[in-house]
Amino acid sequence: MGTAIHRIEIPTIMEVNSGIMENVGSLLERAGIFKVVLFFGEGIRELFGEKIIASIKGKASLTLLETFDFDDIAVENLIPRGFSIPSKAEAVVGVGGGKVLDAAKYIAFLNNLPFVSIPTSTSNDGFSSSGCSLLIGGKRTSVHAAMPFGIIVDLEVIKNAPAKFIYSGLGDIVSKITAVYDWYFEERNNAAKVDDFAAMLAKKSVNSIVRMPYTDITEQFFQKEMVDSLTMSGIAMEIAGNSSPASGSEHLISHALDRVLEKPQLHGIQVGIATYLMSLVQQHRSERIQKFLGDTGFFDYVSTLDLKAEAFEKAVDLAPSIKPNRFTSIHVEENRSKAKELLKSNAILKKILRND
Amino acid sequence: MGTAIHRIEIPTIMEVNSGIMENVGSLLERAGIFKVVLFFGEGIRELFGEKIIASIKGKASLTLLETFDFDDIAVENLIPRGFSIPSKAEAVVGVGGGKVLDAAKYIAFLNNLPFVSIPTSTSNDGFSSSGCSLLIGGKRTSVHAAMPFGIIVDLEVIKNAPAKFIYSGLGDIVSKITAVYDWYFEERNNAAKVDDFAAMLAKKSVNSIVRMPYTDITEQFFQKEMVDSLTMSGIAMEIAGNSSPASGSEHLISHALDRVLEKPQLHGIQVGIATYLMSLVQQHRSERIQKFLGDTGFFDYVSTLDLKAEAFEKAVDLAPSIKPNRFTSIHVEENRSKAKELLKSNAILKKILRND
Amino acid sequence: MGTAIHRIEIPTIMEVNSGIMENVGSLLERAGIFKVVLFFGEGIRELFGEKIIASIKGKASLTLLETFDFDDIAVENLIPRGFSIPSKAEAVVGVGGGKVLDAAKYIAFLNNLPFVSIPTSTSNDGFSSSGCSLLIGGKRTSVHAAMPFGIIVDLEVIKNAPAKFIYSGLGDIVSKITAVYDWYFEERNNAAKVDDFAAMLAKKSVNSIVRMPYTDITEQFFQKEMVDSLTMSGIAMEIAGNSSPASGSEHLISHALDRVLEKPQLHGIQVGIATYLMSLVQQHRSERIQKFLGDTGFFDYVSTLDLKAEAFEKAVDLAPSIKPNRFTSIHVEENRSKAKELLKSNAILKKILRND
Amino acid sequence: MGTAIHRIEIPTIMEVNSGIMENVGSLLERAGIFKVVLFFGEGIRELFGEKIIASIKGKASLTLLETFDFDDIAVENLIPRGFSIPSKAEAVVGVGGGKVLDAAKYIAFLNNLPFVSIPTSTSNDGFSSSGCSLLIGGKRTSVHAAMPFGIIVDLEVIKNAPAKFIYSGLGDIVSKITAVYDWYFEERNNAAKVDDFAAMLAKKSVNSIVRMPYTDITEQFFQKEMVDSLTMSGIAMEIAGNSSPASGSEHLISHALDRVLEKPQLHGIQVGIATYLMSLVQQHRSERIQKFLGDTGFFDYVSTLDLKAEAFEKAVDLAPSIKPNRFTSIHVEENRSKAKELLKSNAILKKILRND
Repeated sequence: MGTAIHRIEIPTIMEVNSGIMENVGSLLERAGIFKVVLFFGEGIRELFGEKIIASIKGKASLTLLETFDFDDIAVENLIPRGFSIPSKAEAVVGVGGGKVLDAAKYIAFLNNLPFVSIPTSTSNDGFSSSGCSLLIGGKRTSVHAAMPFGIIVDLEVIKNAPAKFIYSGLGDIVSKITAVYDWYFEERNNAAKVDDFAAMLAKKSVNSIVRMPYTDITEQFFQKEMVDSLTMSGIAMEIAGNSSPASGSEHLISHALDRVLEKPQLHGIQVGIATYLMSLVQQHRSERIQKFLGDTGFFDYVSTLDLKAEAFEKAVDLAPSIKPNRFTSIHVEENRSKAKELLKSNAILKKILRND
Repeated sequence: MGTAIHRIEIPTIMEVNSGIMENVGSLLERAGIFKVVLFFGEGIRELFGEKIIASIKGKASLTLLETFDFDDIAVENLIPRGFSIPSKAEAVVGVGGGKVLDAAKYIAFLNNLPFVSIPTSTSNDGFSSSGCSLLIGGKRTSVHAAMPFGIIVDLEVIKNAPAKFIYSGLGDIVSKITAVYDWYFEERNNAAKVDDFAAMLAKKSVNSIVRMPYTDITEQFFQKEMVDSLTMSGIAMEIAGNSSPASGSEHLISHALDRVLEKPQLHGIQVGIATYLMSLVQQHRSERIQKFLGDTGFFDYVSTLDLKAEAFEKAVDLAPSIKPNRFTSIHVEENRSKAKELLKSNAILKKILRND
Repeated sequence: MGTAIHRIEIPTIMEVNSGIMENVGSLLERAGIFKVVLFFGEGIRELFGEKIIASIKGKASLTLLETFDFDDIAVENLIPRGFSIPSKAEAVVGVGGGKVLDAAKYIAFLNNLPFVSIPTSTSNDGFSSSGCSLLIGGKRTSVHAAMPFGIIVDLEVIKNAPAKFIYSGLGDIVSKITAVYDWYFEERNNAAKVDDFAAMLAKKSVNSIVRMPYTDITEQFFQKEMVDSLTMSGIAMEIAGNSSPASGSEHLISHALDRVLEKPQLHGIQVGIATYLMSLVQQHRSERIQKFLGDTGFFDYVSTLDLKAEAFEKAVDLAPSIKPNRFTSIHVEENRSKAKELLKSNAILKKILRND
Repeated sequence: MGTAIHRIEIPTIMEVNSGIMENVGSLLERAGIFKVVLFFGEGIRELFGEKIIASIKGKASLTLLETFDFDDIAVENLIPRGFSIPSKAEAVVGVGGGKVLDAAKYIAFLNNLPFVSIPTSTSNDGFSSSGCSLLIGGKRTSVHAAMPFGIIVDLEVIKNAPAKFIYSGLGDIVSKITAVYDWYFEERNNAAKVDDFAAMLAKKSVNSIVRMPYTDITEQFFQKEMVDSLTMSGIAMEIAGNSSPASGSEHLISHALDRVLEKPQLHGIQVGIATYLMSLVQQHRSERIQKFLGDTGFFDYVSTLDLKAEAFEKAVDLAPSIKPNRFTSIHVEENRSKAKELLKSNAILKKILRND
C-alpha cells in the first residue's frame, strides 16, 4: 500500500507570554530537560543573561553545563564549535536574534539534541521553523535542520524590540498570501504538488491577523497573534516538507535584493514590499494587503528607508534564477514586465520607494 | 531523557473545493489507494452515489470492492459489519452526515485501514477528528478511533445542505473560544496541562473566521473558511491527545441537553447557544461571539426552534457530572448560579429561548 | 518523493527473567504508568494474583483501579466490557494464557491505552504481537490491535507451565522456517512483496535457538531464548505489517485442523507438526527441523496425543481456502498431493500420527 | 502520561544476495527513489562503477544526477562537498568501504535525504547504523547521522573482499557478547538503563552465527548470516538510542589501541581480540568466543599480524578515559589488572600476540 500515515513533528514547549524569561528554567524542567548549554547572540547576555541563567540555576534538578556568546553562522566556524559542546548536554538553548538562533539550531541538529528557541525579536519565522540560513562558501544558503523542541517567546521582550523588527515580522506574515497563491500556481502548471493541509495552515496564519481589530501594533494581544502566526508558518513548512507554503515569488525578490543591495534591509521588510508588489501582479487580495501594511504603519516605516525602485526592478529580473527549479508567478516573463511597470505606476510603491 | 519528539498524524488527502465529488476517484488514486469500500449514509446514495461511484469506476487502477448503505452507530451492529468487509480493502470511504462518518471511521479503525471522510454537511468537527460518537449499551459514548487519512469536502454540496447544518457548524466553531478559556482555567487550578500549540491552533481556527468580512454565509469563500476551521479544530484535539482544546463547559451543557431534552437539537446548535452563555459567565470575548452569532443569523435561527430556557437551566446543573474528572468553569457552583441567572436576565438569551 | 521512512513500534518494557512477578509494580512505575486495570485469565488470580497486586499496591505512586477475572474473546461480550473500564486507566495489564492476553490487548486497543502483556505460558507468539484472535460470529478471527507496550515474562512461571505449552512454543518457533520460505515463494510468484528486514528477523529468531546447545528444555537459558525468539517473531510481523514472516502454509494447515478436529490441539503443537511436513514438501531445511523437534522431545510428546494422519490429510486439502488471497506452497495442487503422500510414507510422521 | 510509544526507524530497502550490483537501479525504483547521486570510495568505480551506473541508466524512470569519487571524512572537506550536491537529488548512494559510506551517509544527513548503503566489504556494522566516524579537528569522532534508508549487500562482492575484512566483521560480531554484558554491568551499578529489547536483538545477532554450522567462512550461507548479524547490531543501537548494545569495554580497548599503535589494525580485528580478553575478565561465555574465533581462523589470522601484547596492556590502561561517562568492566581497576595479567598468562593470547 502507498498509504503511509503522514506524521509531523511539533514543538513540545510553546510558551508565548509576558515576563517569561524568568520561567525558562521551570519550562525546561517541566519538559524533562535537565542539562543544557546556552547560546547568546551578540549583546544578548547583557540584556537577558542574568535572568535566564538565574532561572536555570534556581532549579535543583537543572545543570547549566556551559554558556556561549556565539552567533557565527559560517559553517567553517560553526561546525567545530558544534562538535565541541559538552557531551552531557541534553538540549541546546539559543537566545537572541536570527543569527544565534540559526547557529544554535544547527548545533543542536549536529548533536541530535532538542533545540529550544528563545527569540528576542520576531522579525521572521526562523525561530519556529526547521530550516537554517548559514554561510556556506561565503554565501547565504538555506539548509535543513530540525523543528525546535521548544519555543519560548517573552512578549515583554518582543514589544520592546525596535519597531523595525515588528514591521519585518508583519512583512513576513503577509507574504503567506502571495506564497500560497504561487504554490497553487505551480500546481496548475504541473510544477509542484500542493499539500492542502499545509496551505490551509499558512492561510489561516495570515488571515487571523490581517482581519484582527487592534489599536496599536505594540499591544500584547496583537503581538501574541503575530508570534502565533509566525509559528504556524513554521509548522506549515514542516508539514509540506519544504518552504513553499511560506515562500513564493516575494521571497525570491527579497533574496535577489540581498544580492542587488549593498546594505540589504531586514528580510521581512523586503519581503513585505515584494508581497504587495506581487499581489498586484497576481491580482490576488492586494487590497487586503494594502490595508494591513498601511494601517500597521509598515508603509510609513518603509518610506523612511530611502530604498530605490531601481533596485527592485533589478531584483525582479534576477528573482527566477534564485530558484530555477520552481515556477512561481515571477518565473513568467509577462509578470516580470508587469511588476516592473507597477514599480513605476502604483501610487503607494511610488511613495515608499525612491524613483530617481 | 524525557524529551521525546511530539509527532502527530495529519490527513494526507485534504481537498476542500467546489464540484469535487467527481474527483473522488482521482484523489484516491493520487494518494495510492486502489481498492476501496464505500459507506453511504441514509439517502446519500441517491444524491451523490452515482457521481462518486462513476469517478472510481472511471479509473482503471481502482477497484470498488463493495458499497454499503449503513450508518448504524450501535456497537452491537457496527462491530459485526466492521469485521465482514472484504479483506482486500485498502481504505474505507464514508459519505454523508455525522452517523455514517462515525460508523465508517470506526470500521476503518477496527480493520487498521485508512479512512476517507466525505461529509455532505459540516455541522461539527467530527469529519476531521479522530474521535467517534457511538451507541454503547444504548448510550452515546465518545470513543477513540484514528485521524482521517483523507478529507474531501465538496463546497457545492455543503452550501446546499439545509441552513441548520451551517448554523450548527458555526456554533461548533465559536465554542473553541470558551473551550480554550476553560482549558487554561483548568491549568490554573492544577486540573490539566495545556498543550500551548494545540490551544493556539484552536484559537486561530476560530479567530480567522470570526474576524472575516462576508456578505452571506453561503458564499463559497466563507464556507471554505468554515470547513478549514472545523478541520483545524480536529487537528488541535489530535495534538492535545484529548478533546480539551475543542470542548469545554459549553460542550458539557450540550451533552447535558441531550439527556434533558426529548428531542435534542443539532450538536452545534446547542453548543453555540451554550458558548454564548458561558462566554458571559467567563466574561471572555462575549461581545465578539454575540456579534458573530448575531450577524450570521445564528440567533435568528435559534429563535425559530422553540427551545426552553428551563431546559438550559437543568443542563447547567447537570453539566459537571458529565465529565466529573474535568474542572471547567461550569464545575464551579458560583458559575452555575451565574449562568442560570443570565438565562433569565440576558436580553439575547431571553429573546432566543422561551421563558414560560 | 515516495521515500517515506519506515517507522515501527517496539515494546518499551521488556523483561524476561526469573521471579519477576514481584517486580510488576516497579516495572510499571519505571515506564511512567501509574493507574492500571488488571485482567486475569481463568485460575490465574489464585496462582499469581496476590504477588502482582502486592507489587502494585506496594508502590505509593501506583493506583490499582480495578481487577477483572475475564478472558472472554467473543466480541459481543468483549466490547461492552472494554468500554466500561475506569476512565482514569493509563494502561491495561493482562495476566495469563492466550485468551486473557487477547481480551486485554483488545480492550487496551479500544481505549487507546498501552497494553502490558504478562504471559504465564508462551505457547505461541501472541503475547508479543499486535494481532488478536477473537470470536466473531462464533468464528475464530484474526484482528488487528496494537503492539504490547510492555512484555513481562517470569521464567520461573513459564518453566513450571505444563510441558505441552513449551512444546507448543517450540512448534510455533520452528514454523518461521517454512513461513519465510513461503513468503519468498509468494514473491517469486508475484503474489507478495517480501520485507527483507522482517524476513531476516524471523529467520534470526529461529536460527538462534535451533542451533543452540542445551541439555534440558526447561533450563532457564533455553527458556529465555525461546521467549526471545517468540518476541522477535511478533516484531517481525509488526515490521511486515502482516503475519507473513511468521505464518505460512504450516499455519494454514493448523487453522484447517481447527475446523477438522473435534478437539484441536494447542496451536503450536499443530503448527510444529505441519512445519515438519511442509519442510519436506518444500525440501527446505527439513533435517534441521527434524533434529530440533526430535531432540527437544516434541515428536515424543506428539506421539502421546493419538492424532490421526487422516485429519492432516483433510486439513491439507482445506488449507488453501483458509486464506485464498495468499499463494503459499500449499496453494499448489502438486504440493498438496506430495504432502498427503508424505503423511503416509515418512517414517517420523507415521510414528507420531495414527494411520488406521 | 509518560507512556509514549517507542518508535524506531528501520531500513526500507534491505537486499543481501549474490550478484545484485546489477539490480541497484531496480531496487531504487521499487523504493520510489528516482534521482540520485552516487559516491564511490577509492578504487571502487573501477570495480563496480560500470555495473551500478548501467543498472541506473537502464531504468527510464531513473536519473543519475552526478557521480563522485570522494571518501574524505574530514569535516572541513566533507561539509562543502555535502552542500554542493545537485538540489534535485532524492537520495545519496554510497558504494565502497567504511570511509565512503561514512562520508556519503553524512552528506545525505546534511541534506535530509535518504541514504543507500552499498558496502563492498563488511568489516564492521557501520554500513547499517546511524552513526558516522568523522575526522573533527583531525581526531576520529563518532557523530550522529541517520539510519540508512537502504542496505544493499552483494554477497559475491563481500566474498571476494580480502579475508581480513571478513575476520574484522566476525570480530565486530562477537563483541556484542561482552558489550551486552557490560551494559547490564552498568545497569547493576546504576550507571545506565538497559533497553531490554535492544539487548535481546544484539544477543540474537551474535548467537545465531556463533552457533551456526559451516564448513568455510566464505560460503554464501555463512556470509549472509554475517551481514544479517551486523545489520541487526546497527538496529539494536538505533533502538537503544546509543551504541551501548554493540560497544562495551572491548570497543574502548580498540579505540585506545588506535591511539597507542602507530599503524592500527582494522577496527573489527582489534575488537575481536579485545572481546576474547574481556570475556575472560568477565568470566562470561569465553569458551564460546574462543571456539568461534578459533574455528573461523580469526586467531590464526591475528598471529600473522605481529601485534604486541604490550600495546594491549597500554590500551587497557587508557580505555576507561576514552568514555569517562560510562562504567564498563574495564572502568574497574581490578579488572584492568586482571586483563593485563591475562595478556601474559593466557595460552591463546600468548600465541597470537608477541611478548618481547
